[in-house]
Amino acid sequence: SSSLAHKKTLNPRKPCKRIVLYYHEIMFKGDNVANATAATIANPDGNGLGNFKFGKTVVFDDTLTTDNSLLSPPVARAQGFYFYDMKTTYNAWFAFSLVFNSTQYKGTINIMGADMMDEDTRDLSVVGGTGDFFMARGIATFRTEEVEGADYFQVQMDVKFCCPT
Amino acid sequence: SSSLAHKKTLNPRKPCKRIVLYYHEIMFKGDNVANATAATIANPDGNGLGNFKFGKTVVFDDTLTTDNSLLSPPVARAQGFYFYDMKTTYNAWFAFSLVFNSTQYKGTINIMGADMMDEDTRDLSVVGGTGDFFMARGIATFRTEEVEGADYFQVQMDVKFCCPT
Amino acid sequence: SSSLAHKKTLNPRKPCKRIVLYYHEIMFKGDNVANATAATIANPDGNGLGNFKFGKTVVFDDTLTTDNSLLSPPVARAQGFYFYDMKTTYNAWFAFSLVFNSTQYKGTINIMGADMMDEDTRDLSVVGGTGDFFMARGIATFRTEEVEGADYFQVQMDVKFCCPT
Repeated sequence: SSSLAHKKTLNPRKPCKRIVLYYHEIMFKGDNVANATAATIANPDGNGLGNFKFGKTVVFDDTLTTDNSLLSPPVARAQGFYFYDMKTTYNAWFAFSLVFNSTQYKGTINIMGADMMDEDTRDLSVVGGTGDFFMARGIATFRTEEVEGADYFQVQMDVKFCCPT
Repeated sequence: SSSLAHKKTLNPRKPCKRIVLYYHEIMFKGDNVANATAATIANPDGNGLGNFKFGKTVVFDDTLTTDNSLLSPPVARAQGFYFYDMKTTYNAWFAFSLVFNSTQYKGTINIMGADMMDEDTRDLSVVGGTGDFFMARGIATFRTEEVEGADYFQVQMDVKFCCPT
Repeated sequence: SSSLAHKKTLNPRKPCKRIVLYYHEIMFKGDNVANATAATIANPDGNGLGNFKFGKTVVFDDTLTTDNSLLSPPVARAQGFYFYDMKTTYNAWFAFSLVFNSTQYKGTINIMGADMMDEDTRDLSVVGGTGDFFMARGIATFRTEEVEGADYFQVQMDVKFCCPT
């Protein structure tokens, strides 16, 4: 397949820096304010275009940990939104920030792109960053770790920064 | 007019790669699930701030073809959303991904920006890419080809990648 | 704290170009179409996840001036959206375009990121630009200047372009 010329010099398999985080999302169901990290803001059941929640939109402020346990200490937050956008399968579109405020990192990483949930892994774009991540660009690879109905999602986010050298 | 220094070296009129696609959007009207590619998720008639649907928000998974016929074979999908955002004319703001999964291209192109629909052409930003479009940046120029009421829109998207060489 | 290698060469404190603008937002309340520049499109009071309007979503087409007076001549528009996204404090996530059409500048600057409203200043990412701002990247620093209840907001946006030289 064809590719952009600069792909040769910037190799996604050899990023200059990499951060692996686990995103934990607990949907708000009305009675779980203490634990919930995300809430539906439009079309809870989709809007009738197919059976895969087309148009359902969620705002989240999710916990990020460095391993796949919800009980591990949070190291950052993922703040943003997504909506489902296919009528034939579950598929979503995300835009969000990873927000760090720890001794290790201070700053944000800004990400957007398509989440083709049927794929084992899918790549979104790191489109910018601030603070310790000033001018970051690269790829965030999603891998679903766990889904418990519509209540809990765990996704591995493998963030690879591809610096212009 | 003023401009950024690097404009001299990265010339939008001489991109290193260019892909021209036609975006076909068929709005969901309740009874056209088989053909519809987009649905309103908020404020179908706008929210009262002027007469140009201010706040109306649409999620889409539109077909992309290489010419201006809706019946041509799809080569990719455009997945994302837009909302109307002016009270004095039709104007929109878009964020979306072009999703390719063909023998020619695999990967996504991520785009965001203002769509000043009154202009003959308008430029949005290519802010990132994945797969064959890894680390893409550039401009996506919109040109409206056809509008049939609120039911069908066809827009030419001329995507110009401007590689840092 | 750790940082990306290229941070050393691209210094946010020494941008190659800088534009300081003041963003004026007048919320639509039903009876102020003539003056309003923004309207709620979802969850006017939040959706029950905490007391800080989690999920409230606003579309805006706000005036930008070069000083902190609402009555100064507008030099550009800010068009986009934000939503509140924390249950424990006011915090928002923005994606928008600065739209210029003057003798000084023609083009757009595309911005996204987290607005941690409790901080004195907070940085969002400039992820792209068009026209005179072709291929722009950098940081937009927000500083709240004035808040009048839920009706009027004034924010200083200090946009710093960090060119790859």
